[in-house]
Amino acid sequence: MRNICMKVSYDGSGFNGFQSQPKGRTVQDEIEKAIKHLTGEPIVIIGSGRTDAGVHAMGQVFNFHTASTIPTERWAIALNTRLPKDIVIRDAWDVPDAFHSRRSAKRKTYRYSIDIGKFPDVFARAYRFHHPTKLNIEAMAEGLSYLIGTHDFTSYTSIHSTKPHHIRTVYEAYFEKEGQAVHMYITGNGFLYNMVRVIMGTLLWVGQGKLKPEDMKLILEGKSRSLAGPTAMPHGLTLVDVEYGDAAVEPAEATDHDDDE
Amino acid sequence: MRNICMKVSYDGSGFNGFQSQPKGRTVQDEIEKAIKHLTGEPIVIIGSGRTDAGVHAMGQVFNFHTASTIPTERWAIALNTRLPKDIVIRDAWDVPDAFHSRRSAKRKTYRYSIDIGKFPDVFARAYRFHHPTKLNIEAMAEGLSYLIGTHDFTSYTSIHSTKPHHIRTVYEAYFEKEGQAVHMYITGNGFLYNMVRVIMGTLLWVGQGKLKPEDMKLILEGKSRSLAGPTAMPHGLTLVDVEYGDAAVEPAEATDHDDDE
Repeated sequence: MRNICMKVSYDGSGFNGFQSQPKGRTVQDEIEKAIKHLTGEPIVIIGSGRTDAGVHAMGQVFNFHTASTIPTERWAIALNTRLPKDIVIRDAWDVPDAFHSRRSAKRKTYRYSIDIGKFPDVFARAYRFHHPTKLNIEAMAEGLSYLIGTHDFTSYTSIHSTKPHHIRTVYEAYFEKEGQAVHMYITGNGFLYNMVRVIMGTLLWVGQGKLKPEDMKLILEGKSRSLAGPTAMPHGLTLVDVEYGDAAVEPAEATDHDDDE
Repeated sequence: MRNICMKVSYDGSGFNGFQSQPKGRTVQDEIEKAIKHLTGEPIVIIGSGRTDAGVHAMGQVFNFHTASTIPTERWAIALNTRLPKDIVIRDAWDVPDAFHSRRSAKRKTYRYSIDIGKFPDVFARAYRFHHPTKLNIEAMAEGLSYLIGTHDFTSYTSIHSTKPHHIRTVYEAYFEKEGQAVHMYITGNGFLYNMVRVIMGTLLWVGQGKLKPEDMKLILEGKSRSLAGPTAMPHGLTLVDVEYGDAAVEPAEATDHDDDE
C-alpha cells in the first residue's frame, strides 16, 4: 500500500465543513467520492484537521493509503476532473507509511479577512467579513501581539472544545492591508476549536474601542471563554497552509496539536 | 425630477446579462426592483451599455430620473440593503438632466483575466479563464499593441453586431501579471458586441503559437470576423470602469460609442 499526501484548496461557502457529517455536503465526502470514482477503492482520507461550515482553505492537507498504481504526478489532474468546481487539488506526493496529516503537522497558518470598505468588494464577499464602520487596526495589531508565544488559550476557545488541555504556541501573528481588505495571519503549532474566530471576535472589540489592546493579555490570563468577545463569522476564515518539516519525508513523530478550527 | 447616476459592481455568474431580457435574471431587473421597493416608483434605469451573460462589472454606470427626495448620500446604502449579494452599489451622485449613461460615456475600460496556473485558483475561478498550458504572454502583448489607435474593428466583432459602423478608438491596452493570473486591460471610446472577447480569443491563438503577433494587424485590416479567433469565454471579462469627463457635471454631448460587450 502507498501513502499519498495531497494539498487541497476549497471554497467553504457551499460545505458543511471539511469532515464527513451525518448531514450536509462536506469536502471529505466529495474527495472520497472522487477517489472511489477514480480507483474503485472505498477510501477514508485523513485531514490535517477539521474546518467548520463556511471556512475556506487554500492549503488544507490530507493523506490516504491506496493500492492504486496511478503515477503520483497524475493524481491531481485525475481527481480535479472528477471534483466539483469549489474543490481544487493543488499537489500530490508520496509520504512514508507512518505519515499522518493530523498527527504529523508541525505548523498551521490561518488568515482572517475583513473588508473595511464602505461597501463590500462583491468579488470577495464570500471570503471576507464586511465591517464598514471604523476599526483601529493598529490597536488590533498590538492586542494580537500579546498572544504570540506559548499560552493556555482556554479564553480564546469554544466551550465545546474536547481537548485535554489548551496550551498552544503561536509562532507568528500580524495584520496586513490589501486594498480595502485587512488580513490577520496567525501561525501556530495547532489551533483549538474556533480559536482564530474567537481571537478575531475579541480583536474586533479592540478595534471598535470596546477593549484596550492590553486587555487581550488579561483575557488570556483569565482562562475563561466568558471574558473574550464573540466568535467571528466563519466566512472570513481561511486555512492558508499546513507545514510538516521533515515529517512528510521521514517517519512521523506524533503530536497532539491537531486542530479543528 | 432629479437625474441620479450610480456606479455598480456585480458578479455576473448568476445573471443573464445586465439588460432586462424576456428570460432569466438580470442586473437591471434586480436594481429596478430595489428602487421600486425603496421609492415606489416604477423606474427604468439607463445602463452605460449591456454586458453579456456571465460578464462581471467592477464599475458599471447607470442613471435614472426620480421624483424621490432621498438625500444623494443615502441612496447606495438604502439600495444595497435591498439588493441581492451579487450586486453592490458603490456610489451615487446627482447629474444634469441631459446626462445619459450610454450616450455621455467617454471612455470604458475592460479587463480580461486568464488563470495560467497548472490548477485554477478556486477563489477566483468564476472570474478567470483557466488556461493551464503554455502561453507566450510577450507575443500576446505585442499582438495587442497593433490594436491601439482608431480602426475599423469589424474583424474583432460578433457578426451579430447591429452598429452602423465598427470604427472605434483604443486608447490603451496592456497585459499585467498578478500571481497566477494574467490580466489584459483595454480602454477605448466604446466597444462593439463581443469585441474584447474576440480580441482575447484571437490573442490566445497568438499565445499558443498558432498566429504571429503581427497577424493581429493583418486580421484587423482584413475587416472580416472569419479571420479572427474564437470568442473567449464570458466569465473572464469584467467591465472595470466607465468615464465621463465633464459629462457627469455638465450637459451631455451625444456619441454613438455605446457598447454592448
